[in-house]
Amino acid sequence: MSEHQIVSFLTDYGLSDGFVATCHGVLLGIAPDARVIDISHVVPPQDIRTGARLLARVTPYLPKAIHVAVVDPGVGGQRRAVAVDTARGVFVGPDNGLLGWAVEKAGGALAAYELTNGALFRKPVSRTFHGRDIFMPVAGHLARGTALPEAGPRIPTDSLVALPAPVERLEGGDLVSEVILADHFGNLHLASAVDRLEGFSLPVGHPVVCATASGEHAATYVEVFEEVPVGGLAFYGDAVGQLTIAVNSGNAAERLGVTTGDILRIRTNP
Amino acid sequence: MSEHQIVSFLTDYGLSDGFVATCHGVLLGIAPDARVIDISHVVPPQDIRTGARLLARVTPYLPKAIHVAVVDPGVGGQRRAVAVDTARGVFVGPDNGLLGWAVEKAGGALAAYELTNGALFRKPVSRTFHGRDIFMPVAGHLARGTALPEAGPRIPTDSLVALPAPVERLEGGDLVSEVILADHFGNLHLASAVDRLEGFSLPVGHPVVCATASGEHAATYVEVFEEVPVGGLAFYGDAVGQLTIAVNSGNAAERLGVTTGDILRIRTNP
Amino acid sequence: MSEHQIVSFLTDYGLSDGFVATCHGVLLGIAPDARVIDISHVVPPQDIRTGARLLARVTPYLPKAIHVAVVDPGVGGQRRAVAVDTARGVFVGPDNGLLGWAVEKAGGALAAYELTNGALFRKPVSRTFHGRDIFMPVAGHLARGTALPEAGPRIPTDSLVALPAPVERLEGGDLVSEVILADHFGNLHLASAVDRLEGFSLPVGHPVVCATASGEHAATYVEVFEEVPVGGLAFYGDAVGQLTIAVNSGNAAERLGVTTGDILRIRTNP
Repeated sequence: MSEHQIVSFLTDYGLSDGFVATCHGVLLGIAPDARVIDISHVVPPQDIRTGARLLARVTPYLPKAIHVAVVDPGVGGQRRAVAVDTARGVFVGPDNGLLGWAVEKAGGALAAYELTNGALFRKPVSRTFHGRDIFMPVAGHLARGTALPEAGPRIPTDSLVALPAPVERLEGGDLVSEVILADHFGNLHLASAVDRLEGFSLPVGHPVVCATASGEHAATYVEVFEEVPVGGLAFYGDAVGQLTIAVNSGNAAERLGVTTGDILRIRTNP
Repeated sequence: MSEHQIVSFLTDYGLSDGFVATCHGVLLGIAPDARVIDISHVVPPQDIRTGARLLARVTPYLPKAIHVAVVDPGVGGQRRAVAVDTARGVFVGPDNGLLGWAVEKAGGALAAYELTNGALFRKPVSRTFHGRDIFMPVAGHLARGTALPEAGPRIPTDSLVALPAPVERLEGGDLVSEVILADHFGNLHLASAVDRLEGFSLPVGHPVVCATASGEHAATYVEVFEEVPVGGLAFYGDAVGQLTIAVNSGNAAERLGVTTGDILRIRTNP
Repeated sequence: MSEHQIVSFLTDYGLSDGFVATCHGVLLGIAPDARVIDISHVVPPQDIRTGARLLARVTPYLPKAIHVAVVDPGVGGQRRAVAVDTARGVFVGPDNGLLGWAVEKAGGALAAYELTNGALFRKPVSRTFHGRDIFMPVAGHLARGTALPEAGPRIPTDSLVALPAPVERLEGGDLVSEVILADHFGNLHLASAVDRLEGFSLPVGHPVVCATASGEHAATYVEVFEEVPVGGLAFYGDAVGQLTIAVNSGNAAERLGVTTGDILRIRTNP
């Protein structure tokens, strides 16, 4: 292994204002040999749910790391700042649900701590930029070798704020599932994992119907979207095992008028 | 400390054309162990003023570094290429005012040099891409240990081009101040620092009026924008000490129809 | 030289979905000391031609490296995964023409290999995310020292898929040339290199006409676009030696209503 400690970083800070570079600078000022993997900084502003989903999709593929995530509409208010230890590294961020799904993917919380030890913060601590003043400085100290319990008192892991689970259920021959990510290609990733189809014994090539608020759309269940004709609608398992609706060489989000948070109904016996 | 020399990098090159990666490649070809912190590459094209502001906001939080900044509408013309030494590192870029506010934040210029030593350039030097051919190669050689005076002749620090100061003044009970940054969240950061309010003895919770070209908007002076109701307009000091107008969970730039460079009048006795 | 192996990375994955970070994570899990240079991740989705052009523009300025490029509409289908050895490093990606122009710029293919050795892949290999499961893992193993022939069987270099050459020809006193890049500044970079003008003995300052589908536009042949007045149209050689149309302090793509792939006719004797 390398001598470089990896710090992953996800925020809604955007790319134009230098907030991300400021945090990188604070980190390297404390832990000069740390390596940063930027997960995304274009989470929609203050959209905790999308941030949480993205963190849970990416972190399973990263080396063990210190994972810093900041989507933090409650900054400066009463929400706690926390660090959650897992088998895949330490997650650092606000206690508003942002970390939960990623912690679960990492095997669950081994221990949680409230960040209260001001000796690890950048001073003075602002009311509005805890990424710079609390979360990244704490990550820097952890990267340098500070023991996690020095960050503050241990808190019950079941006291951590949890987000409501996404909509995802079977109704007879239908699968009702929330779009948890409308990606850059317009592919609609659903809350349901591929093993949800086990009860249906749906053969590859079978037609399904994807019902949205705007209408019904014929699709085909395939292993990979290229198996439908160009322009056709495919229903398949994506690269992280979630059921997905996509258009071969097209944009399903635009075609169906659907985005993150919308609910789709997939009829497997149309 | 690390053995890695840090090079910060700010441009208006955008993210789509590979200009930034070209410069990274040139740097690492000269100084393989340098670390890059990208401040921003989406400065509006040829907008020296916004680039200068951003450089001055971010570099105070970076470790001592070689700071390369390129927003350079005069490339290929008569403007000088310069390096400015400060207590917080060396600033490298065109002599068009881009570096000035950051140099000031770094405690002022200790010395300035015109970049004329072609032995430190990439050859042939193009007429249009000095980031690749002059600024980053010089930074690479400095990162590797070349002494700054080898870059070219010393020039008077008071010969460096300076930008006009932003509008910022008191008029009776009013503060008249230029928006120096409309950030990713729509928060409007003003040219006036928080200590400008010292003469007003404005209590937290006090109403103010924010007058724009389009009308007058009721706001509240607070310590953090969360102290106004969701959708309310807050007037407060931001994380780098500048007075700011923001909407709690909203976008003040859109609400007020205001952007960078516009002048706001804050009435503290409305 | 450094002990760090450089891996360059170009995709159409976008910046919002964490696909890039996932690949960074997989790389660092295999080769913790690798350095990544991100060329671009905003290639228009599935636009092999633009990706190929960008790879060929940037990689000549990078240190010798492992160059990973993924614009891959045929993922999961029959297209081969390949690695192409050159004097400037190894190019890794789908065999769909994406790598060809960059390989040519690197002096041509020394050898080519089909990536079939599953021992170098991430398992299970998905049908849709070969950047994560094949290309980046192979690059990681190469960065760690695995010999290239271990990646799979050698294949004839002339069996590699090639893209059609861009339109570029002389017609009497006219140059007919495809726009190969409409960059972030709106500058229109043409398929024709500057030495195409050798037969014309065109003096600097000479007027030319740039004919587009929408009309004829007066321009001036100059060495650098600043030599035309602000708002004027310049015809000149860009920083990588390609003929280019630009507006001084303006946007030529918008002015002329032209974008990548369009054909311009430059009349040198208007």
